[in-house]
Amino acid sequence: MGKAEKAYRELTALVRESGVLQSVAELLEWDQEVCMPPGGNAHRAEQMALLAGMVHEKITSPRIGELLAVCEQAEYRAGSAEAVNIREIGRRYRKKTCLPAKLVREIARVTANAHPVWVEAREKNDFALFRPHLERIVALRREQAEAVGYEHSPYDALLDDYEPGERTARLTGLFGALAPKLTDLLRRITDAPLRPDGSVVRRRFPAAAQRALGIEAARAIGFDFNSGRVDPVVHPFCLTVGPGDVRITTRYNENFFNEAFFGFMHETGHGLYEQGLPAADFGLPTGESVSLGIHESQSRMWENCVGRSRPFWEFFFPRLAETFPRATSGVSIEHWLRAINQVQPSFIRVEADEVTYNLHIILRFELERALIEGTLAVADLPAAWNEQFERMLGLAVPDDAQGVLQDVHWSAGLFGYFPTYCLGNLYAAQFFAAAQEQIPLLEHGFADGNFLPLLAWLREQIHRRAMSLPPRELVREVTGHELSPSYLLDYLESKFSTLYGV
Amino acid sequence: MGKAEKAYRELTALVRESGVLQSVAELLEWDQEVCMPPGGNAHRAEQMALLAGMVHEKITSPRIGELLAVCEQAEYRAGSAEAVNIREIGRRYRKKTCLPAKLVREIARVTANAHPVWVEAREKNDFALFRPHLERIVALRREQAEAVGYEHSPYDALLDDYEPGERTARLTGLFGALAPKLTDLLRRITDAPLRPDGSVVRRRFPAAAQRALGIEAARAIGFDFNSGRVDPVVHPFCLTVGPGDVRITTRYNENFFNEAFFGFMHETGHGLYEQGLPAADFGLPTGESVSLGIHESQSRMWENCVGRSRPFWEFFFPRLAETFPRATSGVSIEHWLRAINQVQPSFIRVEADEVTYNLHIILRFELERALIEGTLAVADLPAAWNEQFERMLGLAVPDDAQGVLQDVHWSAGLFGYFPTYCLGNLYAAQFFAAAQEQIPLLEHGFADGNFLPLLAWLREQIHRRAMSLPPRELVREVTGHELSPSYLLDYLESKFSTLYGV
Repeated sequence: MGKAEKAYRELTALVRESGVLQSVAELLEWDQEVCMPPGGNAHRAEQMALLAGMVHEKITSPRIGELLAVCEQAEYRAGSAEAVNIREIGRRYRKKTCLPAKLVREIARVTANAHPVWVEAREKNDFALFRPHLERIVALRREQAEAVGYEHSPYDALLDDYEPGERTARLTGLFGALAPKLTDLLRRITDAPLRPDGSVVRRRFPAAAQRALGIEAARAIGFDFNSGRVDPVVHPFCLTVGPGDVRITTRYNENFFNEAFFGFMHETGHGLYEQGLPAADFGLPTGESVSLGIHESQSRMWENCVGRSRPFWEFFFPRLAETFPRATSGVSIEHWLRAINQVQPSFIRVEADEVTYNLHIILRFELERALIEGTLAVADLPAAWNEQFERMLGLAVPDDAQGVLQDVHWSAGLFGYFPTYCLGNLYAAQFFAAAQEQIPLLEHGFADGNFLPLLAWLREQIHRRAMSLPPRELVREVTGHELSPSYLLDYLESKFSTLYGV
Repeated sequence: MGKAEKAYRELTALVRESGVLQSVAELLEWDQEVCMPPGGNAHRAEQMALLAGMVHEKITSPRIGELLAVCEQAEYRAGSAEAVNIREIGRRYRKKTCLPAKLVREIARVTANAHPVWVEAREKNDFALFRPHLERIVALRREQAEAVGYEHSPYDALLDDYEPGERTARLTGLFGALAPKLTDLLRRITDAPLRPDGSVVRRRFPAAAQRALGIEAARAIGFDFNSGRVDPVVHPFCLTVGPGDVRITTRYNENFFNEAFFGFMHETGHGLYEQGLPAADFGLPTGESVSLGIHESQSRMWENCVGRSRPFWEFFFPRLAETFPRATSGVSIEHWLRAINQVQPSFIRVEADEVTYNLHIILRFELERALIEGTLAVADLPAAWNEQFERMLGLAVPDDAQGVLQDVHWSAGLFGYFPTYCLGNLYAAQFFAAAQEQIPLLEHGFADGNFLPLLAWLREQIHRRAMSLPPRELVREVTGHELSPSYLLDYLESKFSTLYGV
């Protein structure tokens, strides 16, 4: 065995070990949200801090740097597992180790303190309370960007943590092309003669039946419950404890059908991606999802392109009607499709429909980019939010609780995360268009309850590839085209022209 | 700060850290039994092996040896936290580090391989299949005893892992005095004119209602569900994830009341002990239970001395009758008490009543002691089992599946563990007698649903003391007397003379 091969084996063994340890931390988190009694809080924090420290120590150990130096001398075929793992492990190692330990600790401390203040500020609708904390967080993230380095914008350095290789300038172009067209579509929809009756999804849907129906839908689209489970929580998520153990969660609202059902479809989409990653490479880049944006593309595709489509409900409406005979009494498929797809500008991102959701994201991207680039002061943030919100969504924000204070992200120090939600929608639409082109009679199959061709295609085109290609290259490889907003716009135009007659 | 104080602080910080890491391993285990989907098995094994290795590395690190050497030079008041922690940490460190790594690995390997063979052997009722594995396990445990060292019997070295300070010779005396009296009592009971009707506990008890009733009983005797939870499993246990997070489990048999209900009381007894340990000392001997035997005394006291007593059912029978009106129709308290306390020799330990249970244990103790001392060959074990079983319990063992192959313990390499079950019953009876003496109107309180005086007494006398005293010293301190079989015998005589008229 050559020197490089030996180094590669040791390197991947070390990285895998830190991945297994991190997977233990994931279980602690899942358990905290789903099972842990309240009294366990303090000890759980101690367990998590200990594991986080151990994982950090492992992934920043000088030994990894030494092994990387040896591996990076060797020649590996582009796209080979070795090349992918060495590239990604090296990228992360350098990003982790270039940060001063003091800065890392300070960010952890400041965001931990900021969280309860943000909760209080939102409750009291008092931005001034949160402002000094946010100022400190922005300053620290700017400091981090300087430590990591960047070519054009300091925001690039942060964005890259969630969407490897993505750049601020490219996003600005992409979102800049998307936003006015969405605003225009939204105006046409709100002016449309057809007004959907959304009240049917607000009838009574008992939670136990919602759960059964959600599980049935998740199973129908291919989620393997032998290697996963589903539980109720307050803030739904999907989390992987390890290969063969993917856990989705959901929240039941007995007076609003969409919340749990499309939450189910969304988290199942994440779960299908996780269940499709190469199990043998767990803990290594060749066993890992590409980026948050690509992950979101999987959840949004199953939630929206499939779950809110007419073919899906041609298959599933009879099951819905059997499960909720009273709530669906007198409701046709057309009626139902309009209700689950209702477009309605509103203040809260997490309640937004497919058209307005992206506008909520683009707004946040523009503001957080300006904060990090230093062209917007935290003090001026609420006014900027309200002004831009009204311009994009046509509504005057009544207060900061329904405006700038609504999301947890900034209090947690997450800058560069929001754009991955919109990227997810763009990727999803472009992937789905490619699937429609490449898979014969794709949506005819949906109407018969046959989702396997789409899942098999996603497995082959995206899941099994893990991190072998950066997001934009993956999009090009899978769809044959550069990432473009036209797929999402075409998808939305086509869908809402039918539903709203615009 | 002096040198010894500094060393003590570092020592306890290291040991606490390994305790926190071990508590993460406990959660992995709980999750595996309660939540994990089947597909997660392989990865869970990897997570557990990684943590076990890390814990082992921490607790056997040479640094602990160096710090112990410094601490052991210092003078600490006997019984002080420092003295207790240094004594116990030192004892364990030496026991762990005197074992050759090769032996530890070999025991792990051999027992892992033996388990599925034992399962198969039990299923096929074929001891010969299991015999070579058991021979190897016995040989390894004998080797371990030689490595650890002992004064009189190699069995001492193993026993000490579960019941610190206990000795084979003392157990032989104790159990030797107990066994013939139990056999005599059993004979009188089986010959008694009063024959209880046990069929009432074999009526239909729906699981959901059993769960609700079990939780009510657990809460009534003081289990804090804010710091704990209860879940269904195949093999019930109680496990602590950390202070404030104690998890009990149970199994529901809809055609046999005793299984879940007394299982609940038993595991709640363990859980109350865990909830009563000093939370601030979690991970240190001053925050830990004394021994398996003392732990078992808590579970058996709540299960039997309380849960199968007349005063308890004076309080709880109306709740039972409300919950299961059909199953309890026409049943009086007397009828019920006789049914839940029915004595009946049988082959299976885990189904045994209060009288025969200890005979099952003493049998195993004598046999495993002989195996480890080399006076009994594994080849002769089944015959020895059957001969002794008939002598003690008056029944001819029909096959090895219902005899020597019934328990998992030996296949897992557990030698020296069984006697702690009988010790638990002895301790429980002696503690309970002291509680009756020291707490005015103790059982009158039970009849009113007031269990707090007993719990408060146990907290003060046993729980808060953690490992400050070895088991036998704790018994002397709490009860004023040396451990004696007379308390258990008096308790059983008194109880069954009433129930059976013997």
